[in-house]
Formats: sequence, C-alpha cells, structure tokens
Amino acid sequence: MIPTKELVLEAGNRVAPYVHRTPVLTSRLLDDIAGAKLYFKCENLQKMGAFKMRGAINAIQQLTEEERKAGVVTHSSGNFGQALALAANNLGVTAYVVMPSSAPAVKIEAVKAYGARIVISEPTLEAREREANKIVKETGAVFIHPSNDLNVIIGQGTAALELLEDYPDLDCILTPVGGGGLIAGTALAAHYFGKDCEVIGGEPFAVDDAYRSLRSGKIEDNTNTNTIADGLRTHLGDINFPIIKSLVSEIIRVDEEEITDAMRLIWERMKIIIEPSSAVPFAAVLREKELFKNKHIGIILSGGNVDLLKISFLNR
Amino acid sequence: MIPTKELVLEAGNRVAPYVHRTPVLTSRLLDDIAGAKLYFKCENLQKMGAFKMRGAINAIQQLTEEERKAGVVTHSSGNFGQALALAANNLGVTAYVVMPSSAPAVKIEAVKAYGARIVISEPTLEAREREANKIVKETGAVFIHPSNDLNVIIGQGTAALELLEDYPDLDCILTPVGGGGLIAGTALAAHYFGKDCEVIGGEPFAVDDAYRSLRSGKIEDNTNTNTIADGLRTHLGDINFPIIKSLVSEIIRVDEEEITDAMRLIWERMKIIIEPSSAVPFAAVLREKELFKNKHIGIILSGGNVDLLKISFLNR
Repeated sequence: MIPTKELVLEAGNRVAPYVHRTPVLTSRLLDDIAGAKLYFKCENLQKMGAFKMRGAINAIQQLTEEERKAGVVTHSSGNFGQALALAANNLGVTAYVVMPSSAPAVKIEAVKAYGARIVISEPTLEAREREANKIVKETGAVFIHPSNDLNVIIGQGTAALELLEDYPDLDCILTPVGGGGLIAGTALAAHYFGKDCEVIGGEPFAVDDAYRSLRSGKIEDNTNTNTIADGLRTHLGDINFPIIKSLVSEIIRVDEEEITDAMRLIWERMKIIIEPSSAVPFAAVLREKELFKNKHIGIILSGGNVDLLKISFLNR
Repeated sequence: MIPTKELVLEAGNRVAPYVHRTPVLTSRLLDDIAGAKLYFKCENLQKMGAFKMRGAINAIQQLTEEERKAGVVTHSSGNFGQALALAANNLGVTAYVVMPSSAPAVKIEAVKAYGARIVISEPTLEAREREANKIVKETGAVFIHPSNDLNVIIGQGTAALELLEDYPDLDCILTPVGGGGLIAGTALAAHYFGKDCEVIGGEPFAVDDAYRSLRSGKIEDNTNTNTIADGLRTHLGDINFPIIKSLVSEIIRVDEEEITDAMRLIWERMKIIIEPSSAVPFAAVLREKELFKNKHIGIILSGGNVDLLKISFLNR
C-alpha cells in the first residue's frame, strides 16, 4: 500500500515549476546548543509561507481536464486553504475554500486575494464538512483533503526530497505532526532517497494523538486543543496513518515552554520567522539531546504564517 | 585608484570558506507591490547576522604572519565588532574590540562569546579612537576600520559578487549607506561583474550625509542621529568616498515611516527578520516606483541583528 518511488520522484518534477526550492540553512550556534549538525529546510520561506503549497499543486495536477474544469474544494482554517487557493490560481482552476466563521479576517483576506471563492461555515468540523459536501454536489468540484489525500501526502514529501538531494547522508529528518500529511510524505521521501534515514515526528504533549495512535495501532483523537502550535491540533487519517505506522520511527512529545523557547532561538539566532508548529521538531531535538548527539539531522521548518502581534516572547 | 577586478575575485575565493553563501530570495507579492522583479540577497542570514563578516575575514587574511600574531583591533558599537571577533576567532587571531559604555549588554556579551577582548570606552567617537590607538601602541595589533579600509570594502563587495554570479543580468543593485563600506564594495563588484548594472544607495533623510557628500563633492557629516536605522548613522571615509563618487549612480532618501513600513512588509511577507537599516533600500524602491518599473533589482539585505522587543510595529 506504500506509494512507489516513481510517484515521489514524479511529484518532485511536477511541483518544481510552481514552488520555491527553499534554502537549507545551518547555524553553528544552534549546532553547538543541540550537540548535533542541523540542516533546516526552510518551508517558512515557501510560497504562501508553508510547505502546503507542494501538496496542493501535486493534487490539482493529477486531476483530469474534466475535473479541473469543475474546480476544487477544501475546508481549512489555516494554511491549506491559502495553498489550495494559490495553487488553483497558478493552474487556472477554480477553488472553493470553506472557512469557519472563527477564522481571522486576515486569513480570509489572504485566501480571497489568491482568487478563491470563500464559503463561511459554522466553526465546527461537521459544519465545514457539510458545506464542502454541498459544494461538491452543486458544482462537481473535487474535494481535496488537507492531509489525508495520497497526492497531497506525496506532494508534501517533495520538501524532504529536495533536502536529501542537497544532503544525501542525513541520519534522520524531523517534522511536526498535525494531520499527518507532511510526516507521511517525508517518510516516503526518506524511505526511497535516504541512506537509512530515519523519520521522527515532534508533537506537543497537549495534542499527542499521533504519539498515542502509534502505540494503540488505531487513529486516536485529541480531547483538547490547548497548544500554541495551532497547526498541530488535527488528527491522523486513514490514508496517511498506514504510511506513518510502517515508516516513522517514533514521535517525541514536547511541552509548551519548550516550543516557545525553540521558536525564540530560531527567530533570534537564524533571523527567520517560523510559526509555533515549526518549532516543535527542533524542541524535540533539544529535549532528547542524547538521542541525536553528533548526528546529521534534517528539520523541516514547516511554515512562517504567524501573527507577529501574538507572539508571547515579544510581549513581555 | 579603483581596485582591480582581480582583487575583487580573489576576495570572493578568500572569504568563501568562512561565510555562508547566503540565499537569494524572491517574492511574487513584493514584486507586485513594487512593480519590479526583486532579488533579495539575504545577508541577514549571514554568520553573526550581517554582511560585515565578509570584510572582517578579507581584511584579516591580508595580514602578514607577524601582524596576525599581534592581533587586530577595532572600535564598534554594532555589527563590525562582532564580525571582527568571529573572523579573528575563525582565523586564530586575537581581536580587541573597543565598545562604548552605552552599548547594549547583549552586544557586549556576543562579542565576548566570540572570544574577543573587550575594552569599554566613554561613549564618544573620540574616546573610542583614543582607546583603540592605545591598544595599537601597547600590543602592536593592527587597527581595522569598520568601513574605511580597502580590504574591508572589497570583502563587503563579495555579497554582490555572489548575487551577480546567481543573477548576472540585474539592472541595478541597491544597498543601505552608512559608513560606505558596503556600497563601495558593491559598486566595485557591479562595475566588474555586472552588465551595465547600476548601484544605488538608500539612506534615511535624517542622516543623509552620503546624499549631501555626493552633491558637494566632499565628505559631509550628520548633525543628528535620529533614525531607526541605527546602522546608518556613520559617515563616509576618504578611502570609500572616491569609489562611491565614481561608481555609485545616486542615493535615494527615505523617511522613517517608509523604513518601518518596508521592514514590516519584509518580515510579514518574506518571513525573515531584518534590522531597520536593511529595509532602507527596499523603502527606496517603493518610494521611487517609476524609476524602477519592471527592472530586475538586486537588494542587499544587510543584517538581522535587532532586539525583537524594540520593534515598534510589534508593540502597538
């Protein structure tokens, strides 16, 4: 059930004209702090500010001409809505994005600026799904799930594919774990293009559904969503979970203070803006230093879409 | 009196092992806002957070064995102190850095962390120069000026050299203008390696000494230092001014609000942290849109060393 090497390679070629080949940054200071050699793949510098552009492009490109004419639809309060809107815009396809009424106006404006049609729903998952289904029925548009869609998953893996092209000898790659699309895609890329390259997830203790899912063998949910890493509040899906189960070594949990400290280190030392979710894998490395000692570690910095006015360490 | 092409090329090879080849980032959103194609050379992502590492490395490497043994000295309240400290550390040379008693503790700590010997002086230029001269006399260390030193100037030009290697067809390159080292080095690189590539400076109205110097034909001073672009409060020197006079096309002045707006756009849209001085050239492009319309423009983002707690747009 694991997608083939060719699919991953093809996705790399397919997304390349539409995404930035993001830089891989290194920092001697952060290496010293971690006791390891770190290679940060900067998807915060990706178009629309997150890796999600990759999956959206790959998914839309797999559609037939007929399907493209009808358009695409997703529901998202965050980055995937923007990604699908921009990807659809690039490929001349109509995008419908269902957003909860609780979404910040600035995010709604961003999706609108990329030319998508926005449908506002009640702020529950059920209401969002209902609205999306309604659009599918009325317009024939194809529903594309933000993380539990095989083409999206493979597209997200192209960040790790590029990273391994640049640094083929990494001992492991870490990503944050939210809906599971990024880590599943990364695991595929590392499986086919790494040399015994492990893939490890970072997850907040507060929303450790993936950690528990790997232990119980079934998809677990979160009882609360009380974490600063707002991109990681979702749970795994039936398409990405089998890939994660078979190819991800482990998931390391971190607490909220560790996330904020790691984020601050990256802002201050590397001079780049990352969102809290992106700091989670680096926080995991700092928490488990012995495990990573002297290793060559890739870290996917997943995104940089953060409200600058809401960063706690800036407001002391 | 203009240094040769070979000197510039040699400097590129000389500094390469000690500096990051920083990424050149692009942003469709910022291109749309500017009405031009922008290529941002990210020296904010350079070691110690600024281009000044390049000049420091190049200058120390030109010293004789004897001179290296005696060490190097500079006076600086800002990035060049850190740069000389780190460069000297990399090359196994002792660095003495004279810092004014008014310098923030965090900057003094950074210089100390790079292994330099720090001498605190009264917070006037005269006192700093006096202390530096004293060290030269007592230790035989070589004084290296932050911006008015030919090897420093040529070293700073290696950022533009790399940028032109990546994008040989730029119509112009913009830099901020402070002490004049960066713009003079950039002008040399563009002169020898660009194709009719103009070099243009950005300068705050509040400290427009370089703008006035180009008009009067002699080095002018500033009567106040009241700008957020704290790296640009210094004036030109007798070594960089002749280069600037003959190779820089013009200097565009911007006001304080334009600097803050440009800085905010770069933080929010490009997800990178730049210091206020680095926003000045982009502010100049936005101020004079007609002049730059549809052109291919390189912008040197000079540094990212900023106190996150002091950024006004974060504290509304």
